[in-house]
Amino acid sequence: MAARFVYDLSEGSAEMRSLLGGKGANVAEMLRLGVSVPDGFTVTTEACVATMRDGAWPDGLWDEILRHLAALEERTSRRLGEGDRPLLVSVRSGAVHSMPGMMDTVLNLGMSEAAAAALAAESGDERFAWDSYRRFVQMFGEVVEGVPGDVYEDALRRKKADRGVRADSDLAADDLRGLGAEFRRLTREHGGELPEDPREQLRRAIDAVFRSWSTPRATVYRRAHGIADDLGTAVNVMQMVFGNLGDDCATGVCFTRNPSTGVREAFGEFLVNAQGEDVVSGVRTPRPLAELEAVLPDAHRQLLDTMALLEAHYRDLQDIEFTIERGRLYLLQTRTGKRTAPASLRVARDLVAEGTITREEAVARVDPHALDQLLHPAIDPQERSEPLTRGLNASPGAAVGRIVLDADTAEQRRKAGERVVLVRHETTPDDIHGVIAAEGILTAHGGMTSHAAVVARGMGKPCVAGAESVRIDLASRTVEIGGRSFRVGDEITLDGSTGEVFAGALVLVPPQANEDLDQILAWADESRRLGVRANADTPADAARARSFGAEGIGLCRTEHMFMAEDRLAHVRAMILASSDSERAAALTALAPMQQADFAGILQAMDGHEVTIRLLDPPLHEFLPDLTEQAVETERLREAGGPAHAAAARLLGRIRRLHEANPMLGTRGSRVGLLHPDIYAMQVRAIARAARDERGAGRDPRPAIMLPLIAWASELERLRALVVEVLAEEGAAEFGIPIGTMVELPRAALCADQIALHADFFSFGTNDLTQTALGISRDDAEGKFLAAYIEDGVLQDNPFATIDVDGVGALVRTGCERGRAVNAGLGLGVCGEHGGDPASIAFFHGVGVDYVSCSPFRVPAARLAAAQAALGGGFRDR
Amino acid sequence: MAARFVYDLSEGSAEMRSLLGGKGANVAEMLRLGVSVPDGFTVTTEACVATMRDGAWPDGLWDEILRHLAALEERTSRRLGEGDRPLLVSVRSGAVHSMPGMMDTVLNLGMSEAAAAALAAESGDERFAWDSYRRFVQMFGEVVEGVPGDVYEDALRRKKADRGVRADSDLAADDLRGLGAEFRRLTREHGGELPEDPREQLRRAIDAVFRSWSTPRATVYRRAHGIADDLGTAVNVMQMVFGNLGDDCATGVCFTRNPSTGVREAFGEFLVNAQGEDVVSGVRTPRPLAELEAVLPDAHRQLLDTMALLEAHYRDLQDIEFTIERGRLYLLQTRTGKRTAPASLRVARDLVAEGTITREEAVARVDPHALDQLLHPAIDPQERSEPLTRGLNASPGAAVGRIVLDADTAEQRRKAGERVVLVRHETTPDDIHGVIAAEGILTAHGGMTSHAAVVARGMGKPCVAGAESVRIDLASRTVEIGGRSFRVGDEITLDGSTGEVFAGALVLVPPQANEDLDQILAWADESRRLGVRANADTPADAARARSFGAEGIGLCRTEHMFMAEDRLAHVRAMILASSDSERAAALTALAPMQQADFAGILQAMDGHEVTIRLLDPPLHEFLPDLTEQAVETERLREAGGPAHAAAARLLGRIRRLHEANPMLGTRGSRVGLLHPDIYAMQVRAIARAARDERGAGRDPRPAIMLPLIAWASELERLRALVVEVLAEEGAAEFGIPIGTMVELPRAALCADQIALHADFFSFGTNDLTQTALGISRDDAEGKFLAAYIEDGVLQDNPFATIDVDGVGALVRTGCERGRAVNAGLGLGVCGEHGGDPASIAFFHGVGVDYVSCSPFRVPAARLAAAQAALGGGFRDR
Repeated sequence: MAARFVYDLSEGSAEMRSLLGGKGANVAEMLRLGVSVPDGFTVTTEACVATMRDGAWPDGLWDEILRHLAALEERTSRRLGEGDRPLLVSVRSGAVHSMPGMMDTVLNLGMSEAAAAALAAESGDERFAWDSYRRFVQMFGEVVEGVPGDVYEDALRRKKADRGVRADSDLAADDLRGLGAEFRRLTREHGGELPEDPREQLRRAIDAVFRSWSTPRATVYRRAHGIADDLGTAVNVMQMVFGNLGDDCATGVCFTRNPSTGVREAFGEFLVNAQGEDVVSGVRTPRPLAELEAVLPDAHRQLLDTMALLEAHYRDLQDIEFTIERGRLYLLQTRTGKRTAPASLRVARDLVAEGTITREEAVARVDPHALDQLLHPAIDPQERSEPLTRGLNASPGAAVGRIVLDADTAEQRRKAGERVVLVRHETTPDDIHGVIAAEGILTAHGGMTSHAAVVARGMGKPCVAGAESVRIDLASRTVEIGGRSFRVGDEITLDGSTGEVFAGALVLVPPQANEDLDQILAWADESRRLGVRANADTPADAARARSFGAEGIGLCRTEHMFMAEDRLAHVRAMILASSDSERAAALTALAPMQQADFAGILQAMDGHEVTIRLLDPPLHEFLPDLTEQAVETERLREAGGPAHAAAARLLGRIRRLHEANPMLGTRGSRVGLLHPDIYAMQVRAIARAARDERGAGRDPRPAIMLPLIAWASELERLRALVVEVLAEEGAAEFGIPIGTMVELPRAALCADQIALHADFFSFGTNDLTQTALGISRDDAEGKFLAAYIEDGVLQDNPFATIDVDGVGALVRTGCERGRAVNAGLGLGVCGEHGGDPASIAFFHGVGVDYVSCSPFRVPAARLAAAQAALGGGFRDR
Repeated sequence: MAARFVYDLSEGSAEMRSLLGGKGANVAEMLRLGVSVPDGFTVTTEACVATMRDGAWPDGLWDEILRHLAALEERTSRRLGEGDRPLLVSVRSGAVHSMPGMMDTVLNLGMSEAAAAALAAESGDERFAWDSYRRFVQMFGEVVEGVPGDVYEDALRRKKADRGVRADSDLAADDLRGLGAEFRRLTREHGGELPEDPREQLRRAIDAVFRSWSTPRATVYRRAHGIADDLGTAVNVMQMVFGNLGDDCATGVCFTRNPSTGVREAFGEFLVNAQGEDVVSGVRTPRPLAELEAVLPDAHRQLLDTMALLEAHYRDLQDIEFTIERGRLYLLQTRTGKRTAPASLRVARDLVAEGTITREEAVARVDPHALDQLLHPAIDPQERSEPLTRGLNASPGAAVGRIVLDADTAEQRRKAGERVVLVRHETTPDDIHGVIAAEGILTAHGGMTSHAAVVARGMGKPCVAGAESVRIDLASRTVEIGGRSFRVGDEITLDGSTGEVFAGALVLVPPQANEDLDQILAWADESRRLGVRANADTPADAARARSFGAEGIGLCRTEHMFMAEDRLAHVRAMILASSDSERAAALTALAPMQQADFAGILQAMDGHEVTIRLLDPPLHEFLPDLTEQAVETERLREAGGPAHAAAARLLGRIRRLHEANPMLGTRGSRVGLLHPDIYAMQVRAIARAARDERGAGRDPRPAIMLPLIAWASELERLRALVVEVLAEEGAAEFGIPIGTMVELPRAALCADQIALHADFFSFGTNDLTQTALGISRDDAEGKFLAAYIEDGVLQDNPFATIDVDGVGALVRTGCERGRAVNAGLGLGVCGEHGGDPASIAFFHGVGVDYVSCSPFRVPAARLAAAQAALGGGFRDR
């Protein structure tokens, strides 16, 4: 039997999502629920996959489409593009995972001059008919034939100028008819062709949708959202319904709850006498949904009922597209609505309260990545000045960055390490890489459901949309905001929660408490097995980590303490000491400072474990940069004298300590073995801080971690040193655990040897990734790694999400071999992967005890750990 | 039953070596053979190990020793240190593996003034008795009580000055008696004590020998020779026999064949009227063994017979110590003789010819490490000038280096990358680290069996010994050689094969053919399974590799071709090109040069595979150094103008390409994926070179290797590129294999994915070691790694001998997983470990097909591969 590639809507259901795509499956489901939807059929994702694979349509596909088309014609008593009552259809992509605006759509397909004339007669609206015609010619030209959109827009602009009108809607039917003819001519001029045969139009449009799966912008979007490249898209062919047949027509987008706040209220926007694309493109600014009641009360009531039905059915917030044709409501699409992080929490919590879902379901419903946006800083209230302008508060959070006016520049500057704000008239799917690169987005046009707003919310990036006082001059690379002129590179601040835009870089403050978050996380904590700790180096960070629910500190780096201004002179004196006594003096000066550092952190984490890593970087990191010192010495050469001599001497010391590959050099425990006095000083400071804390009646729980161990013999010796110093300080009975980072492949492979000398392992997956993959993060992320991800050599950045096959295999081996010889061995992860949900799911699976991440990621980690325990983690549906 | 720790000689045999040590087992074996040896007993290695472990002697050991001593007293009818005929004994260490001169010995034990007087009466030689007494006091003081030797030597020197005599032997009995008393006083003054009770002397002496196992010099020696630290030493207590009782006495060392050449001839040295230490210490220059016939003909004949007996029994060259006491021959020791590499080959080959051993035994008898010395360069005959002086040709081969006068300086300068020659009056075991560090050794005193000569031969280092015109002035750090003055740091050249010393650095030439080597290697080739290839980048290297028996090239690096002077400008133009056309032009200029390179190598390796690795280093390696260019730019800043502008521009480009950790940066296949035009050019050059070679009727066999693969997707894409270019060049049917280096942990762990796209793997164990262990070889070897080995954190340098537990585990995993999915996958090793015998044994075990190493190491690799196949590799016996 030949494979089947086409399904009528009446044959589908929500369960058939992977075959019919999200849109097709949900429209079919709505039909099953008795909701009014346009009639049509769906070409499956399998047809697209087969076409991509073979470079040609599967055998029989076209015949199957023709059969379903004939049946549609039969049901609607119309013929595609023919006769007095021509059938017009929309051809829309519909992937398994929602990719809003990423792929192509052709509306009004079946159009021709004859069909337009028939439509004019049937509808009694010549202007509508010829407007539909010219829209179709343009869409077909752009989407199917690849003619640049400007070609048509320029002609439209000329026509409006000719006629002395401003809005498209002011053009008369004849103007539009002329434009249609002009557009066809332009299509041909630009190498395109608009077939007269409506079936040929359909064939080409379906093929174009298949191809749109592989456009760069769609590929970039999939990368950013972790969607596999080989899923393909379905194609939905549905009878056109028209929101632009007059004032009893409308089209709009609505949500069953407010997607920005999560409040249970019908929320949306509509335009009277418009096609759907007018709403999402941001060309006209739409009206709030509530106003629909006054305009079309029956349709409004029917819509509210349908929204309630759909939310109850899907048990989640729905994002719905609708069209009202001459008073009759049609639903074009429903899907689980994207929402802000606060909204996702509010909705999940409310749905539990309403008895719709369980606590566990609520926990599984919240995307841990989305919590990042809750934790985005806001503008310090004391800093809040007069805004330059105010737009729509399209995606919450505050952002500071340098103005860029195009996506490529955004990306370049971002790679160069700058924070940027992308300022655009309106964004299009082609800007996706710029949106990814930017801290925030500011657009001059478009509403809450415009492309910029939808995409920014999805990414948790602040966005201010439709700020109409923003005027961009690309030629001079300047932008006027609220009457004030800025140049590319000037700093501005956005508040996506209020829609305000400010000049300069305002001070941001940490996010505020969120009771919904607290509730969801409390539920998450009931489910998870993994502990969640934070990486923190200061009492302030430790306190913040506690406030986010960190159950301890998994990584307290001591080198940052060495870098502090009041320490660095002593640290350098220690490194450059020419005698043992000089060296000892420098260490003696550092000791009380270290002790105070540790005391502060132990106090902030009273009763919780604080894993302190002894000094890790190579000593030369505390000295001036080699190249800078060499240049400085050359600069002083002419003048000579003691300044030059001192510079030259320092240069000599730096040269001797310089390393070609410091990542693989004399660092970590290697420094500790070469200079045991440094580690002894640190251990002494820890012991004394713990003793003082105990004396003050508190419960300090330091643990001592030795970094960069490759051989058991290293750990054996350093452990002996630590034990000896602890004993000297009377801290032997404090029960301070002594463990090691596992951050070299050898350490993981030989974990059974190393675990004999360790109370715990902490997998340093950053360095383990660097060594297992042979990638210096500093060097690669902006260079070949970005290119690898862009070109699809890699799906994910291995520094963001753990490389399961390579680095993950080492973690698994380390856990297994370590526990095999030391059943009580503690196992943690303190690389950045400790805050990444996908990685957390992996760590849960291999049986580590806890993950540790930056304080701001602790809530997301708690949630992800619960999702892992509940099986499978969060999945965008 | 209590453990037994003491055995009489009559209870032992050669098989009991691990219990009785080499010396004790062999003396017992000689006794079994009817050879005349002094009576005695052996304290086992287990007693030493238990003592080291527990910090105290095992229970019952002392009683057991006393019982065996009593039996010895009974057999000899003497009592230790008592009565008219006092028993005197030697107390000597005797480890399982020979460690000549490394551990301590006490002779004449049992001495006291009373015993000396009795000995004088018994021997009728007062001078002998009191000389033996003062020697004992000195030895006991130094060895057991830790008094510095200078203390005694100074007193001896003062006494000789007092008496106006030059030689020790010119001192009278009374002088020596006085010296004995003086030595006892000095021992007490320096905190030591010489017990009167001879049994207490024995107890302390045995304990001192136990402790001598753990001295720094013994530890260093074990490191250098790969001897485990936990074997311990046995202690041999034997009745003293005296070679210094008069002119019918002698003592000496002999070999059953010439240890320098391997020629079958009795070879050795002796001194009349001397103790054994006088021969090996180099204080008196001994006489050739042949002269013994004239002095003591009976003993000489008896010695020759015994030598023949022992060689026949042990089936190998023996190194023998003997003493003749009043005409009677005693053998004190026999052991397998250390020999030069040429001698080891000659002896092995001759023993096969004589029917004594099999070919396989001959192959197993030769230490592959020793072949290095055969392959040492010699002085270019055309360069040979008048030597400064001539000493003994103590260890063959030529060496060039800067003069150093002490071991510490030798080690320091070596670490700083200099080649040094250690020049000493005579070397002692305390100089061992300097000998290891030096290219060659020059001593002013001592013979062919002096410490310097023995140690240097063992290590295969050139040595000229006993060059009497060498006069060292430590204070002024100068040395006079043949009347000419040199300073520390001046260069000299040694010829250890002739004993000549030359001023300056002479040009050295590669070693000459050696028929014994050819024969042994031919036998080795019959036994081995592993293929042996060479790493070579030029036709000259390839030709040399062929002459050493390389069966192909396992690694042909193309970057060295890029570095050549006539190429670098084009390479830089390619890197700095500001347009595609500039870039293409630079590549076009490079293409014919690459093609010629490949043609030359393919021709030299006609009929054998040449594995060509495409460009590996990061591109910035071809540009000037960042720091240098920054300084240069600063230097030109004042003057300004176009020179400064050009320098600043280049600096900017270098900065953009600069990497913090180039080892982990954009290199290898990452460069190939970012710049496919470079790899395409190289593949094109290979295809064209192969085509031309085929056109000329030869059989070129290139293979193409992609470096630094971490992901299968990288290899998949690059393989497609290579296949495409080969097809374009009409080389598709040449059957050129396409494979990859496995040099990242991930590649080994994911070998099952990568092998799907590879015809072969070549394990790049250098980089695999760097990444698996997190060690940059450039940075670590001279820094912490040297300290690790010195301090015993590590036994071996992991870049010299493969780290079996870590890197080895990855190689094993890579082999297993690769072959699991691709049964025909070729497996090779091209890191430096490919030339290391211990590593080769490992590679044999995991089933790789071939190893590839530098051309000079090919013979050693062939031998080691055979030994691995014969089971167990070479073991020093």
